[in-house]
Amino acid sequence: LPYTCEVFRKESSGLVTFYELTMFKTARVLFSFRCQGYGKSSKLQQWKEESFALNLTRRYRHSVTLRDKADGDTCLVLSVNSKWLSFPLSWLRDNCQCSECYHRNSFSRKILLDTFNPDISYQSVQTDDGGQTLRIVWSNQHVSEFELDWLLKRNFSPDVQKEQLNFIKRPEVTWGPTDFAAATRPTFDDLMASEECLYHFLENLETYGVVLIEGAPCRPGLLRNFVERFSFIRRTHYGEIFTIIDKADTHNVAYTNDLLQLHTDLPYYEYMPGVNLLHCIKQDPSAGGRSWLLDGLKAANKLKATNPEAFQVLSSTQVTWSDEGRDVEGEFYKLHRSPVICLAEGIVTRINLSQPQRSSVFTVTCDEATRWYSALRQFSEVLTDPEVMVDFKLKEGDILAFSNIRVIH
Amino acid sequence: LPYTCEVFRKESSGLVTFYELTMFKTARVLFSFRCQGYGKSSKLQQWKEESFALNLTRRYRHSVTLRDKADGDTCLVLSVNSKWLSFPLSWLRDNCQCSECYHRNSFSRKILLDTFNPDISYQSVQTDDGGQTLRIVWSNQHVSEFELDWLLKRNFSPDVQKEQLNFIKRPEVTWGPTDFAAATRPTFDDLMASEECLYHFLENLETYGVVLIEGAPCRPGLLRNFVERFSFIRRTHYGEIFTIIDKADTHNVAYTNDLLQLHTDLPYYEYMPGVNLLHCIKQDPSAGGRSWLLDGLKAANKLKATNPEAFQVLSSTQVTWSDEGRDVEGEFYKLHRSPVICLAEGIVTRINLSQPQRSSVFTVTCDEATRWYSALRQFSEVLTDPEVMVDFKLKEGDILAFSNIRVIH
Repeated sequence: LPYTCEVFRKESSGLVTFYELTMFKTARVLFSFRCQGYGKSSKLQQWKEESFALNLTRRYRHSVTLRDKADGDTCLVLSVNSKWLSFPLSWLRDNCQCSECYHRNSFSRKILLDTFNPDISYQSVQTDDGGQTLRIVWSNQHVSEFELDWLLKRNFSPDVQKEQLNFIKRPEVTWGPTDFAAATRPTFDDLMASEECLYHFLENLETYGVVLIEGAPCRPGLLRNFVERFSFIRRTHYGEIFTIIDKADTHNVAYTNDLLQLHTDLPYYEYMPGVNLLHCIKQDPSAGGRSWLLDGLKAANKLKATNPEAFQVLSSTQVTWSDEGRDVEGEFYKLHRSPVICLAEGIVTRINLSQPQRSSVFTVTCDEATRWYSALRQFSEVLTDPEVMVDFKLKEGDILAFSNIRVIH
Repeated sequence: LPYTCEVFRKESSGLVTFYELTMFKTARVLFSFRCQGYGKSSKLQQWKEESFALNLTRRYRHSVTLRDKADGDTCLVLSVNSKWLSFPLSWLRDNCQCSECYHRNSFSRKILLDTFNPDISYQSVQTDDGGQTLRIVWSNQHVSEFELDWLLKRNFSPDVQKEQLNFIKRPEVTWGPTDFAAATRPTFDDLMASEECLYHFLENLETYGVVLIEGAPCRPGLLRNFVERFSFIRRTHYGEIFTIIDKADTHNVAYTNDLLQLHTDLPYYEYMPGVNLLHCIKQDPSAGGRSWLLDGLKAANKLKATNPEAFQVLSSTQVTWSDEGRDVEGEFYKLHRSPVICLAEGIVTRINLSQPQRSSVFTVTCDEATRWYSALRQFSEVLTDPEVMVDFKLKEGDILAFSNIRVIH
């Protein structure tokens, strides 16, 4: 099961096809991690500016009008450049930027939770410096000063908040085989040489959950060099980097020459690694060695639209995922219960799928089990739909990078 | 913020108090990982037997009666030793143990999902070997044989399923200061020498989310030796092991001499490390250097019971957690949105709390923000309740092991 997306077909037995793969943090970490330290390219510079923009205020002059104070106010209401904005008083007090309340060097709030008064009121508010700064004197005499530019970037209007949400996590875009075929494929050399290329790689990995890299040297161990360019490897009980090759007497079906079914890796981890890298080092000239790949988010959305009952069953039934055996780190026996489709507030947050690593222990009623098998079968139809699943063959030197939280391979 | 539970009080400035800490996998992994490989002690042997019991059948002879087959049956119903049991047909077919359907060496299902028929029926069922084996001939002639003992351990009755659930994840038990004071404290030497002691340590860590170890040598780097006895370290952007000591020009408030408020570590990680270890290497004789510690699960339950509205607000409002700066792995800027109290199907699954690493970006309406601050303040009252929070002082040589998913420190 884990760590490979190839299909070893029986008629191609004797393959020496193997891949190397490693896994590390979630795409979100990837996206944010270290990139700020990189390069001078205009695109990266743009992103750096965007990421730091929340902290770098420009001291523009604004035209500010304050609404009169009234008893029981929970918000400060002011017009900035003719637009009325509200800021909760509790939030303003919580985010006071003075050195007593805020540690600027670590961007950290210091204000104490256990003496914080959320029902605070103020004595006076005024703008200074010709509309650059807002100065609040609180009822307990504490003084908070805010750059107006800083406040505007954090204002509570829906349009600003939408921008903030997009910055915190790039919106996911679903894809199918046509999109995958048309997607830009960065070369390994460009990724190692260009900050801009690396930036787009990370952005696309977050947006689509998959990027196919081409032209990497075909030597074992290369993935470590690549990952350490922008991140670090997350270790599991299979180690950090491993080679997928037909092994006798194995404890994992991925090491056999059998067909490897569609799956996600490590479903038995509650806190699983987020991104897998699969490096095709040796490919076989036969018809074998093909890979299947699909966007689990697209598949789940499609199931929900066409078969809401099956979606409901798969997103609410707890399945036992397990992994038992021995590998580089010693003996292991991992167990975790989780649905096939994980939801948080109705949003798909993770897909778990694995025939080999689904336990025979199924802690539901007989009727629930019967309904679940039927729903899984219907999900399987969606997974192999030609509008959903990519059937392709990795070339030697390809590196497939994908979100294991979302992509089924 | 992260990686320490000490309180540096200002009146004790000049402290050289520091701790070492590392973090690794969830308690569940801890609990299962490698333990099977260990020792001969009777307690550990008992656990090993328990964990393998699902796979080791004893070939007892059972008295079996089969209910007559009827059209449209979705279950096989049989009486075993005078007790009627049902098994879904789809589940039986899915868990066929023949070498075509199951890879015994890796405990892995091989049966193909995309040709699996959940509406399967059978031609005949019979017991062999004097009630040891059940033999099913399916409508497509495939034959499945099950040890009856294997089936009984997986039967769908509520009492057996309750046992299974307890094995998959030990039930959590909440605790307060009195329980913490009365808890057994294993010594470092015993943990290194005794498999039984190690087993109880892991079990208690899973059940209570905290264990205080005593008598460890006071030298930096010791935690690695300890962790590698049963697991491996999970790396973060702060590295694997780090020393908490007052640092000038720091990017993290944990490295300052200020009071460190109650918090959880790494709330800005979507997939966060599960267990932290904190090794007290040098303690200060002054009144400073005290630690606060509490069971977040107990606190959340108490809030729910006494103030359900605040509980509802804190479990449904998305907060932005952030960490920005530079450390051993380079520059970082981590962002993650998550509530203070995370729920899955009404069950508390994780607590996020951190004044310094809560972003000033708050993507809610003004009214929601006002309600949230009020709810947080009320949660704070619960956290510092003397029936909830432990206020104690670590001794030199103590190692505090705790679940960061659940325990606030």
